[in-house]
Amino acid sequence: MTADATLDVVGIGNALVDVLSHETDEFVAAQGLVKSAMTLIEPDRAEQLYQAMGPGIEMSGGSAANTIAGVASFGARAAYMGRVYDDQLGAVFAHDLRAQGVTFDNKPASDGPSTGRCLIVVTPDAHRTMNTCLGASALFGPDDVDPDLVRSAQVTFLEGYLFDRPESKEAYWVASKYARDAGRKVALTLSDLFCVERHHDDFVPLVRERVDILFANEAEACALWGCDEVGAAVERARAEVAVACITLSEKGSIVVAGAETHEIPARPVDVVDTTGAGDLYASGFLYGYTSGLPLARCGELGTLAAAEVISHIGARPDVPLSTLLS
Amino acid sequence: MTADATLDVVGIGNALVDVLSHETDEFVAAQGLVKSAMTLIEPDRAEQLYQAMGPGIEMSGGSAANTIAGVASFGARAAYMGRVYDDQLGAVFAHDLRAQGVTFDNKPASDGPSTGRCLIVVTPDAHRTMNTCLGASALFGPDDVDPDLVRSAQVTFLEGYLFDRPESKEAYWVASKYARDAGRKVALTLSDLFCVERHHDDFVPLVRERVDILFANEAEACALWGCDEVGAAVERARAEVAVACITLSEKGSIVVAGAETHEIPARPVDVVDTTGAGDLYASGFLYGYTSGLPLARCGELGTLAAAEVISHIGARPDVPLSTLLS
Repeated sequence: MTADATLDVVGIGNALVDVLSHETDEFVAAQGLVKSAMTLIEPDRAEQLYQAMGPGIEMSGGSAANTIAGVASFGARAAYMGRVYDDQLGAVFAHDLRAQGVTFDNKPASDGPSTGRCLIVVTPDAHRTMNTCLGASALFGPDDVDPDLVRSAQVTFLEGYLFDRPESKEAYWVASKYARDAGRKVALTLSDLFCVERHHDDFVPLVRERVDILFANEAEACALWGCDEVGAAVERARAEVAVACITLSEKGSIVVAGAETHEIPARPVDVVDTTGAGDLYASGFLYGYTSGLPLARCGELGTLAAAEVISHIGARPDVPLSTLLS
Repeated sequence: MTADATLDVVGIGNALVDVLSHETDEFVAAQGLVKSAMTLIEPDRAEQLYQAMGPGIEMSGGSAANTIAGVASFGARAAYMGRVYDDQLGAVFAHDLRAQGVTFDNKPASDGPSTGRCLIVVTPDAHRTMNTCLGASALFGPDDVDPDLVRSAQVTFLEGYLFDRPESKEAYWVASKYARDAGRKVALTLSDLFCVERHHDDFVPLVRERVDILFANEAEACALWGCDEVGAAVERARAEVAVACITLSEKGSIVVAGAETHEIPARPVDVVDTTGAGDLYASGFLYGYTSGLPLARCGELGTLAAAEVISHIGARPDVPLSTLLS
């Protein structure tokens, strides 16, 4: 690790507030939702779906923001870049990151769409079906990247979900260049199968040229490299990036780095809501990585944080993750 | 009960969104909060306290609104009157009531303060310390009362917390007159010891002249009638109102009505967050009462609903209360 870094991890992603409600599988079917996936929706559809949903609870979300909140919860030095509007939900999003000790300095937008929301339907099987109205978050571009923040962090963490519009793709190329030029590392999570499929041809060069640490579940890894089974994807990951974490849900995860291979078992846990599982796996891994721990231990910390977040409603830790360290 | 009623219960109260965070007793002391009570705070102080609080979750609240959501969750016909501003939290409040099947027709205000918030600090002993910035809700007045809604409901339920400004006191006298003139019943919860002490001289005549069903905990009942011990307060309640429910926290509740006295034991439950216990006791009781059930059973249903709400975070039911009926 680079000794002079003043931050451990800075994350970039869609700044969203989650709205969660418990619904039946019949509701998911009747609303034509893509179960367990993340679907982008327009404001009109978001309003319509919200009206159909039951009473909700609101919590700050956003994939990379959840990861960064988890990194800070472990006690590491963390910052976040993302775009909110100057409204009540934007203030909630900013508060919740700062209250976790995360540096978040992007000024709220004073024109354009309101703060993004993710309408999350949790079904009795604990799966979450996400319907995201990006709002202000989608307009993140290269000018929203703070070069000094990127240069000061050991790792810049990018969320695949944001890699959607030309401006945000440009922001990732810009941010990863600042990081690399400063001798820092770049981490990326592929986020979602459909996301990988939509932007496949743009993800491949970004991963090859700029990514040091890749997070992906098996379906996303297979889609990225056109593999039929996870073993082949793991070998492609080994060849393409310095460190890759392939998560396998209840079967745990595989961490590969050059000749190293670590199979990390999942932790037994009563699953209440899978929202944030992948986000928090990245928290634990990056906390370990920036602390200079061995990769196998980094993977275990990822599993530890993921187990905590799926044991309750919501995508951020309920307890300081530092208290779970032993 | 009156056969021609098209609604079972209509509630009036402060329309608030709760912001909950877990904090230590040291935090409560350092912030100078009045533990386990409800304190009214100004917008500047609310902003300052919010900045000091950890990451939060947002959920619709408001005492009478929680009661009414519970009444609807049992399957009864319910409506609510209260005042929100035309902002994101106001929309959340309205959504969550309507999604529960509650009629809520007050148009959001287009000028004046923003929607009210209740900053709730939950300590490790599961107690909640509430700090309320009333915002738009405080401006509720007689013109916000819909006479037809009151006349159509078997019971009009009033929350003591709202009984604070001259306009809202006037609104309660007006609403209770509409109810009584239509042959309906009026219920009141005293809400909070400090609330009773602040408005003692106004509560006494309201209770005597207009209230058929009174909800109070032992401290509130003693304060209202200047009694030193709960036995004396129970006897005053018996003399002053047709039906009184005196709640005794973990010792259960006492329901008195003329010669009838029912002692209802509490239910054993792992207490996670006491927010909403009194509100949901009123839900169960009023559901039973408007269903024509015996008073002892009404008290049991109150206990049932209170036990559900204190077993999880938040002041509204996590499951349809109708599914708990047997």
